[in-house]
Amino acid sequence: MSHEFDLIERIRGQVGRSSRVKVGIGDDAAVLDWSQHPECLVTVDMLMEGIDFTLDSATPEQIGRKALAVNLSDIAAMAGRPTACVVAVALPRRGGFELGQRLMAGLLPLAQEFDVALAGGDTNTWEGPLVLSITVLGEPTGRGPVLRSGARPGDWIFVTGPLGGSLSGHHLDFTPRIREAQALHAATTLHSLIDISDGLAADLGHILQESRVGALLEAEAIPIAPAATGMSRRDGQSPLRHALADGEDFELILTVSPQEGERLLAKPPQGVTLYWIGQVTETAGLSLKQPDGKLESLSDWGWKHGFRDQ
Amino acid sequence: MSHEFDLIERIRGQVGRSSRVKVGIGDDAAVLDWSQHPECLVTVDMLMEGIDFTLDSATPEQIGRKALAVNLSDIAAMAGRPTACVVAVALPRRGGFELGQRLMAGLLPLAQEFDVALAGGDTNTWEGPLVLSITVLGEPTGRGPVLRSGARPGDWIFVTGPLGGSLSGHHLDFTPRIREAQALHAATTLHSLIDISDGLAADLGHILQESRVGALLEAEAIPIAPAATGMSRRDGQSPLRHALADGEDFELILTVSPQEGERLLAKPPQGVTLYWIGQVTETAGLSLKQPDGKLESLSDWGWKHGFRDQ
Repeated sequence: MSHEFDLIERIRGQVGRSSRVKVGIGDDAAVLDWSQHPECLVTVDMLMEGIDFTLDSATPEQIGRKALAVNLSDIAAMAGRPTACVVAVALPRRGGFELGQRLMAGLLPLAQEFDVALAGGDTNTWEGPLVLSITVLGEPTGRGPVLRSGARPGDWIFVTGPLGGSLSGHHLDFTPRIREAQALHAATTLHSLIDISDGLAADLGHILQESRVGALLEAEAIPIAPAATGMSRRDGQSPLRHALADGEDFELILTVSPQEGERLLAKPPQGVTLYWIGQVTETAGLSLKQPDGKLESLSDWGWKHGFRDQ
Repeated sequence: MSHEFDLIERIRGQVGRSSRVKVGIGDDAAVLDWSQHPECLVTVDMLMEGIDFTLDSATPEQIGRKALAVNLSDIAAMAGRPTACVVAVALPRRGGFELGQRLMAGLLPLAQEFDVALAGGDTNTWEGPLVLSITVLGEPTGRGPVLRSGARPGDWIFVTGPLGGSLSGHHLDFTPRIREAQALHAATTLHSLIDISDGLAADLGHILQESRVGALLEAEAIPIAPAATGMSRRDGQSPLRHALADGEDFELILTVSPQEGERLLAKPPQGVTLYWIGQVTETAGLSLKQPDGKLESLSDWGWKHGFRDQ
């Protein structure tokens, strides 16, 4: 953190300070008082102009907020509590100072909402597009981090909100499901947990792969966001397809035993919305059951990396 | 860390594993067993193509190594011990997979050398230039982190190696002064410490500013790297000027009491080279004393951020 300019220097240790982590200020590395935390969660996400946002369709405040929110969603995906973050940015030389200030103006209220200390950063300028890379540190809660690998055959599968069409706006203002994950972790035994960044089919696919199981989803049970319907009207794809395939919903997918599933459906933790969408199967593969009983395979809907020559 | 592709997935928890930090693998956030560490250091540095390196003049292995090394240097600047890192990259779509592998091939040996676990990352592709952002976590050693703010009038000022001309090659193969900082921290009471990323004058300036003191450097005592002399031949600036102003030497600047300074000069810790370069003064400002006794002010040699319209 050698090239901080006063944008981050100025606010570090003042705004966005955490009540749980003491941040030592003003040096090459931040010092976090970590004595309450035998384990540490760490996650990083990089957002790039033209890929994760455009400056035409999002305000700098929304972009700054989103850059932190996607990282908080990763901490939520392990039922963790975020504690501190560091922010690296590549800003365009022209207008970059104001842009940087506006990014921070969007990021800081979210940091404060979730009691996350801004522990430092690295601010750079260039002639290239805007890039933000945020690293968030956190601590596990309750019985420790919930992984992707614990799903068992028979588990009920839930999501925490309606899905699809997020890129028409919701990806810029979603609330990371930190509170929901902790409430669920406290209320039940979560077998597996993940956040939806690549899409329901793709991210459930991660759980299935790492748990070595399969799943059967009920088409009629998938909760469809109004934005998915709106997008469907424009592109002709079905709203259901949007709900299954669209990325950036940042809702949680969780699996629990059928007994716990029934209990949760009857009385979900306060503030948590749960939609049952299907069940984990012993047989590998991800299938969708249509209302008429027909099965469709979704196994190939996984996220693909973007290399041209691989 | 939602978009890791197998480049980082594959090596996480296998190569670059630390003997001191247990890394939980395969999920949205890494889990670090932090129980031995009541305090945590965290630092981030972002390297951008065209600013911090060019693909014409450096190999991908050198760039990957440098991206980690500059962060390790920040941990050294606090006399800390690095423990884990996360790596976010924006790779060009064309050729990006091979480029990513080569970046990692350069980064990992350095991580292993300093026992730093690669705890995860975020790999992205786009049409833009190469960007790497690395966050390093560490732990303080000995009596805790050494800050920039502890320099006192009368302190002797040392650097750990010859300076200047680093951009002609040394910035790609320097060894972060992790071991030296720890050896010094164990051997003496360091009043202040920083690594030279922006240049001797600029980084010593940070110490002076945060300690509210000044300094007088002896021109003849500044150790000049051969690369500074070589660069001088090409650009006509004096080698001394290069040693004072050039960035990216990544040597340490330290200040200690005169008594400790004498003791260190007589018997430096094993493996540590020390050059006395001057003294801290009560009067603010940074001055250079020429052999003829004339004083030159270096106070304005600080690093400037690159915004066009500020």
